[in-house]
Amino acid sequence: MVDVPSRWYNIVADLPVPLPPLIDPLDDEGSRIQLLVRILPSRLIDEEYTLSRFLDIPDEVRAAYRKVGRPTPLIRAEGLEKALGVHGRVRIYYKFEGALPTGSHKINTAIPQVYYAKLDGANEVATETGAGQWGLAVATAAAILGMKATIFMTRSSYHSKRQRRLLMQLLGATVHPSPSEVTEAGRRALRENPEHPGSLGLAITEAVEYVLSSNDRRYVAGSVLESVLTHQTVIGMEVLEQLPEEPDYMIACVGGGSNMGGFSYPALGMKLRSEGFEKTRFIAAEATAVPRLSKGEYRYDGLDTGLVLPLAKMYTLGKDYVPPPIHAAGLRYHGAAPSLSLLRKLGYIEARAYTQEEVYEAGKLFARSEGIIPAPESTHAIRAVIDIAKRAPQDTVIVFNLSGHGLLDTDAFEKIESRIISGRLPQPD
Amino acid sequence: MVDVPSRWYNIVADLPVPLPPLIDPLDDEGSRIQLLVRILPSRLIDEEYTLSRFLDIPDEVRAAYRKVGRPTPLIRAEGLEKALGVHGRVRIYYKFEGALPTGSHKINTAIPQVYYAKLDGANEVATETGAGQWGLAVATAAAILGMKATIFMTRSSYHSKRQRRLLMQLLGATVHPSPSEVTEAGRRALRENPEHPGSLGLAITEAVEYVLSSNDRRYVAGSVLESVLTHQTVIGMEVLEQLPEEPDYMIACVGGGSNMGGFSYPALGMKLRSEGFEKTRFIAAEATAVPRLSKGEYRYDGLDTGLVLPLAKMYTLGKDYVPPPIHAAGLRYHGAAPSLSLLRKLGYIEARAYTQEEVYEAGKLFARSEGIIPAPESTHAIRAVIDIAKRAPQDTVIVFNLSGHGLLDTDAFEKIESRIISGRLPQPD
Repeated sequence: MVDVPSRWYNIVADLPVPLPPLIDPLDDEGSRIQLLVRILPSRLIDEEYTLSRFLDIPDEVRAAYRKVGRPTPLIRAEGLEKALGVHGRVRIYYKFEGALPTGSHKINTAIPQVYYAKLDGANEVATETGAGQWGLAVATAAAILGMKATIFMTRSSYHSKRQRRLLMQLLGATVHPSPSEVTEAGRRALRENPEHPGSLGLAITEAVEYVLSSNDRRYVAGSVLESVLTHQTVIGMEVLEQLPEEPDYMIACVGGGSNMGGFSYPALGMKLRSEGFEKTRFIAAEATAVPRLSKGEYRYDGLDTGLVLPLAKMYTLGKDYVPPPIHAAGLRYHGAAPSLSLLRKLGYIEARAYTQEEVYEAGKLFARSEGIIPAPESTHAIRAVIDIAKRAPQDTVIVFNLSGHGLLDTDAFEKIESRIISGRLPQPD
Repeated sequence: MVDVPSRWYNIVADLPVPLPPLIDPLDDEGSRIQLLVRILPSRLIDEEYTLSRFLDIPDEVRAAYRKVGRPTPLIRAEGLEKALGVHGRVRIYYKFEGALPTGSHKINTAIPQVYYAKLDGANEVATETGAGQWGLAVATAAAILGMKATIFMTRSSYHSKRQRRLLMQLLGATVHPSPSEVTEAGRRALRENPEHPGSLGLAITEAVEYVLSSNDRRYVAGSVLESVLTHQTVIGMEVLEQLPEEPDYMIACVGGGSNMGGFSYPALGMKLRSEGFEKTRFIAAEATAVPRLSKGEYRYDGLDTGLVLPLAKMYTLGKDYVPPPIHAAGLRYHGAAPSLSLLRKLGYIEARAYTQEEVYEAGKLFARSEGIIPAPESTHAIRAVIDIAKRAPQDTVIVFNLSGHGLLDTDAFEKIESRIISGRLPQPD
């Protein structure tokens, strides 16, 4: 059996062309890059800028990875193969990140970031969260490592996603609805509109202000940063050990890109270095409602709506793009990580977009044939798998990342189901 | 690392005195034991009555166990030890059954029972469920093994536990609110009271009637039967492989007894055979609201309210006992499995009872120090662990079963929290 890997993989070392760096916007608000350096754990900054190919996973982080149940299993999807009528022709495997205690891959980077904050002598981490997956991962990592966690949760989610909020609180985290009374930015927003529903951009602004107001606090980041993608490669490093055969396809869904990057980069890196995976195609599955890789532009854009953070060169729908309300909250980000965007631009990663009713049906089929209810985000990958498997020739091998379970997403499923039943389908694109 | 065990353990083979058998009530309603033989999968009946000490786990069941993530991890609770101030003096370990995809140990017996129904040539299993844990496990096992599942869910839970109901439906199970229009018993109850909230006894009656009406159906049972406890010993067999040292205490919570039995019997059997675990004390943690082991009588009583099933000799609060509404739905059963009751009577198992506010505080401490939110049932075991650890001498070793996670139980947690805050504490006993 497989142990927790000893190293993460940093694809920046193997990119065919240099990665366009984060830059500052040309305005008078000061350097966002300097701000990052002030608010992030210092070791994360080191990792963000390193050109080393492999990074040692600290012993404390490996121990925490083991504690939360890594390595996660790689499972042969024989039930799905049979349900699709491709059993004997196509072999499908999935990596199951939903086996982790918060139900998704997010904890893979929460653990090292909280640990790095501790190395800095801080006693508290702060961050923003929308639907709550990232906040829950940070709350869990903080509980395991004995740190305080403060989460700014968009006010609308604070009320509508009561369940995840309560779980964070049970874990000991302080959860503020954003806009909050805790920061100047929050108070200002509330003065302008006491019923302000909040936004992820504003929540980031609040978390950053909160961290800047004390030396004992560090900001932790859920996706998009290269260092975050590097942490997530613990998934792909395990897959390299677990895969019994080289796949024709590696498939994952894309929000900010840490799921797709973490799952696929170790294999894609071998392809870039001509060490294997020559025949493998890498497929990023996204929502037609947020088609940044399929229809976005490749250019410099803000990482966040409020321009608190630097600009990154990436596929983007524009930082002010507001996706129609879809169930897969984790896919609603307007851009994609710079390395992922570059690899897409260069043709190493392909993108496919699916509507939410397409992915919902795929998710149901998966649940009924495999006995695992997938997260709404992960159903996008499942849809791509199904489409490819149905037309695939003899002995095709597909592996995908099941980034999370959907046990906490029944409200979302119910909404889609009732829309499908009532014919009130969303009209993406 | 540990593989899935190849055998279950059947403690009936090692009991110091013979196990009192299931018997029929002395009325004119016919033999309930014959009924069991008609409705249960035939291999389950064989296992229910065998005196073999070890039973081979069928290859198909072992494969499904692997698929859902067995073996589950045994985790050192260093965070809890530190939070209690006993680190260095007491070593605490927990077996984490919440790592399974339905979030609890229930699937360990759902898988073999659904498989046995398939061996009989049936294409469908039926059962009852209250809060939905058992129904969710059956729906999952049926999805994995390609069988239909029909679940009779008490009407009150059907509406209040919408989340678990929807998850069962996503997995492809048919879920009927009980009383339902599907059976004569259900229609009769609805004629008498169209607003009938349902009861577990009535749901059992409906499931049994439903199974009897077709040869293609089998009934599957969630707890109390010896064969069910035997299936759950997959937990304890893994623990024997995983435990680095012999414990002073083995602790689990008790509803019907399959969690406590499954976790502890392999070790307790070694104690009965004088092969080890001489010093180990076995502690069953229950709710003061349902104190069958602490305050019940040891006598023959109905397994179910409706007397559809046979009588068993067990610790019981009386089959008509209605516990006050507490959050830990899995502990609300009036009795305890015959072997567990006998071992309690003989002094091999001790019982401790806790109030729900005591266990809630224990659960919060666990969540904040270990990063895992425990199921309300499991917090009873955690409370016992904490009480014992605080007073324990140097080098005490405690291992307990964390039978499930609490991600789907936030409503229950919220209710307790608001009762504690408002001072409206329940008055058990």
